[in-house]
Amino acid sequence: MDIRNQHLNLGEWMELIDRSLTEPDSEPLVNLVDDPEPYDAIFVGGGAGGRFGAAYMRAMGGRPLIIDSWPFLGGSCPHQACVPHHLFSEAAEELDRMRWFSDELFFPKFDASRASILDMIKLFLDGRGSAHAFMNWQTKEQLDVEYVLNARATVIDKNTVQAAGRTFTTRNLILAMGARPVDPGIPGLDLRGVYDFVSLVEELDYEPTRCVIIGGSKVAMEYGSFFHATGCETTIVSRSPLMRTKALHHVDEELRRYVVDGMRKRGMTILEGAHPVSVNDNGSGAVASVTVRLASGETVDLETDFVFLGTGERPQLQGTQETLGYEVNEAGRIVVNKRMQTSVPGVYAIGDMIGGPMEMFKARKSGVCASRNIMGEDLEFDYTEFPDFLHTTYEVTWVGLTEEEARERFDDVIIIRMPPYVEGLDTENLPLPCAEGTMLYAFSKPELSGFQKLVVDGASRRIVGAHHVGYGAKDAFQYIDHLIHRPEGLTIDQLGWMNELFLNPEHFVQLSRLRAGKPKLTHL
Amino acid sequence: MDIRNQHLNLGEWMELIDRSLTEPDSEPLVNLVDDPEPYDAIFVGGGAGGRFGAAYMRAMGGRPLIIDSWPFLGGSCPHQACVPHHLFSEAAEELDRMRWFSDELFFPKFDASRASILDMIKLFLDGRGSAHAFMNWQTKEQLDVEYVLNARATVIDKNTVQAAGRTFTTRNLILAMGARPVDPGIPGLDLRGVYDFVSLVEELDYEPTRCVIIGGSKVAMEYGSFFHATGCETTIVSRSPLMRTKALHHVDEELRRYVVDGMRKRGMTILEGAHPVSVNDNGSGAVASVTVRLASGETVDLETDFVFLGTGERPQLQGTQETLGYEVNEAGRIVVNKRMQTSVPGVYAIGDMIGGPMEMFKARKSGVCASRNIMGEDLEFDYTEFPDFLHTTYEVTWVGLTEEEARERFDDVIIIRMPPYVEGLDTENLPLPCAEGTMLYAFSKPELSGFQKLVVDGASRRIVGAHHVGYGAKDAFQYIDHLIHRPEGLTIDQLGWMNELFLNPEHFVQLSRLRAGKPKLTHL
Repeated sequence: MDIRNQHLNLGEWMELIDRSLTEPDSEPLVNLVDDPEPYDAIFVGGGAGGRFGAAYMRAMGGRPLIIDSWPFLGGSCPHQACVPHHLFSEAAEELDRMRWFSDELFFPKFDASRASILDMIKLFLDGRGSAHAFMNWQTKEQLDVEYVLNARATVIDKNTVQAAGRTFTTRNLILAMGARPVDPGIPGLDLRGVYDFVSLVEELDYEPTRCVIIGGSKVAMEYGSFFHATGCETTIVSRSPLMRTKALHHVDEELRRYVVDGMRKRGMTILEGAHPVSVNDNGSGAVASVTVRLASGETVDLETDFVFLGTGERPQLQGTQETLGYEVNEAGRIVVNKRMQTSVPGVYAIGDMIGGPMEMFKARKSGVCASRNIMGEDLEFDYTEFPDFLHTTYEVTWVGLTEEEARERFDDVIIIRMPPYVEGLDTENLPLPCAEGTMLYAFSKPELSGFQKLVVDGASRRIVGAHHVGYGAKDAFQYIDHLIHRPEGLTIDQLGWMNELFLNPEHFVQLSRLRAGKPKLTHL
Repeated sequence: MDIRNQHLNLGEWMELIDRSLTEPDSEPLVNLVDDPEPYDAIFVGGGAGGRFGAAYMRAMGGRPLIIDSWPFLGGSCPHQACVPHHLFSEAAEELDRMRWFSDELFFPKFDASRASILDMIKLFLDGRGSAHAFMNWQTKEQLDVEYVLNARATVIDKNTVQAAGRTFTTRNLILAMGARPVDPGIPGLDLRGVYDFVSLVEELDYEPTRCVIIGGSKVAMEYGSFFHATGCETTIVSRSPLMRTKALHHVDEELRRYVVDGMRKRGMTILEGAHPVSVNDNGSGAVASVTVRLASGETVDLETDFVFLGTGERPQLQGTQETLGYEVNEAGRIVVNKRMQTSVPGVYAIGDMIGGPMEMFKARKSGVCASRNIMGEDLEFDYTEFPDFLHTTYEVTWVGLTEEEARERFDDVIIIRMPPYVEGLDTENLPLPCAEGTMLYAFSKPELSGFQKLVVDGASRRIVGAHHVGYGAKDAFQYIDHLIHRPEGLTIDQLGWMNELFLNPEHFVQLSRLRAGKPKLTHL
């Protein structure tokens, strides 16, 4: 279906995408300029990395082509991953508040029977099409990028890709096919009732009552907090302590404790150092229990009607390694340099295909980095340092060094913390920190109102780490990350002289100001 | 009561403060070092400005003294102003969500009878003491500042202040007595049922059913949104259009419309260009109605049992002008230079006593600025540009130039907006913007999910303004303010290369990235 000269509105796009997804032999959606010249780059995959990379290249005057097997751009994020996660996490936060305040103030008695995983999935499925439609519309009409959707790309060689019955030639090839959840390789995962974040939204068809989560990833913590908040009693089975997995860096121990204790306080069972042995059949092909070897060595059967896999993701190479011969590391990730170049000249890989965090900023910026290099810029992208984030029923955000890491690196580490740590002080009723999202907690249940910590190198006076549990601070961390990682850094004096928007969810500006006057810094 | 050698914990402080507030002839609370030397500065008033100013001076090695008539430090903010406002605004946001989602998803049928202004005030009053206790504790134990509380200061001359039966000498005097709500000067304000934000928390003793707000200030919008969210039908009577008052600068017209339309959409009545004529007696000394001359010239009586004044604030000079002879402007504000020096050498004024916004950052930083100058630093504080903020049932945040202001100043203004403005495009179901706090709206009622706009000077590529309605972006604006007001500014290229924490409540990073590739920028 040639849509080049059609200017569909959002409603028409939604309909077309929906039809393409549901009809078995739906046609490719072809948005191509008639020009026989090779493309500057073909992006195999139009998710976050492919779409942003292509948009940037086009903006610079290049000519990219995106090919995606889905009938929409944007990839898994709006379809199965970050967007449903955020919707579910908002529900978790709201349900959590409604439960703590049950029959207090203006909150009615909490009725757990109203909360439903299925309802939230339905809400998501009914709505996800509009983001798809928007991205297709924007990429064509505002960003002027060519694409072929609803068509699987076949990579013939590094300059030739076939899709939708056509052959496309290109100067550069950019692999952007994303990742899929990893199967942890234990018996019983083929039983009914075993889901990952993809199959959850696509296939769940009953309301679970108990959940066992295998794995301790962000996904495990985020989805687990949501399931539990709906009233589905949740157990996390994790080999490593939560937030102490390889995938997460710079996790401050006090922050970790606040977060994990908070999950336990809400009734979740968290089994750390535990190994899943098998998922067991109820006799009719559905899960009945999960056998787990605990840290103690004891083996237990956890009864459940719902198993959720939170064991991470792995790139989808889709046979391209055999064709192209690029190098892959032991984790199955394509090896690239800081220009996103693989070991094969002219072949780039971006997003979840390569090492580093499987996060949006990296996907998008790696696509942009590949494009800018192809267009002749000399640009490296280092994603070894970045602000990080997860949801429980809280927003948990951090950047830079933990207190422990800073103490290894610097002689004079200064900690500025809220609630303040002062030996013997009765802080249990202290309503600090507080700001939007924690005011009700602060005034009723102060122990739930969050945690924040700033880590400062006393000698250089530079902020080297920032850590936050609460609400409303996530956005700030993009800028804190930028400021502390500039060559000149960010000093406590500069931070303390900023104009705070009181009550600011992180109290970093004013807490710094209370200390910045000191020639020799001390804790607060 | 000499507390110098007592190291009260938070619970003991709470008790002492409470006793001091409730017992008629309670003693002054005296925390003084025995040293006959004059102080470097006496702060008359220990609110935000006085407390931060004194703490900074002490940190620099100076010797300040705070005197306050209240038995606690921190001033009106935690006692009557910003803290209750934030608590009430969080309730408003939550009630608003519960009402929109009444009997949908996991939300029960909304029961307006549960929502109560009185309950929220009680919650606040029961809890406010702990912030007071913390500030007294912190200022003494962590910040090492001397103070005399629960004692009115009498300024004898610029070097001599009496309080608690003692005479204190000082090299500098810093006036920090704050401001109080302004009486709009119409008949009937002495009737029962007329409140301002101070008397509201101290005196309200019935549950109002209808509210008429006189004035169109931030306080009017914030408290009005709260009253209305509790089910108290609210009318705002404002001479100027809302957010077009002198006190607010850089209000983008599209943002203003989204905010004010949003209040109307929730059922509030907003009468702009309307003049209050009188508050009328019900025959037994309580309010029955407010007479208002509408913009049309027509005069109407608005029946009500609750009148709330949102007509701004004015400094409390407390007779010090007669004693000291400093200059005051026509608005009753003390005239100071950028070092916070009044027209009388050695006398400074800070916080709400001087011009500029009556906001926390200015109060605190003006105190710090006075201290740093007294301690010999050469420092000016310019508070003419700053990030600004208000609550409705949303968080509304802005910094820098509006679109209109930018168009006056620059030839090539580029607008990046969400939802996108494209003539004729059917954006009514577009769930963008969305992030924490607006996910449920985005998927159910997308027209409620917020508004955001970035204003860019196309020639220099610099961000010159940022505007946001939604949740969770407030904290970021502290840093955006810092970045765009640096001499080198912040370009769209730099912003687009930051590491976003997706879904970031303001989508500025990635929206910039979608445009930054273009040598000649265009709208998005």
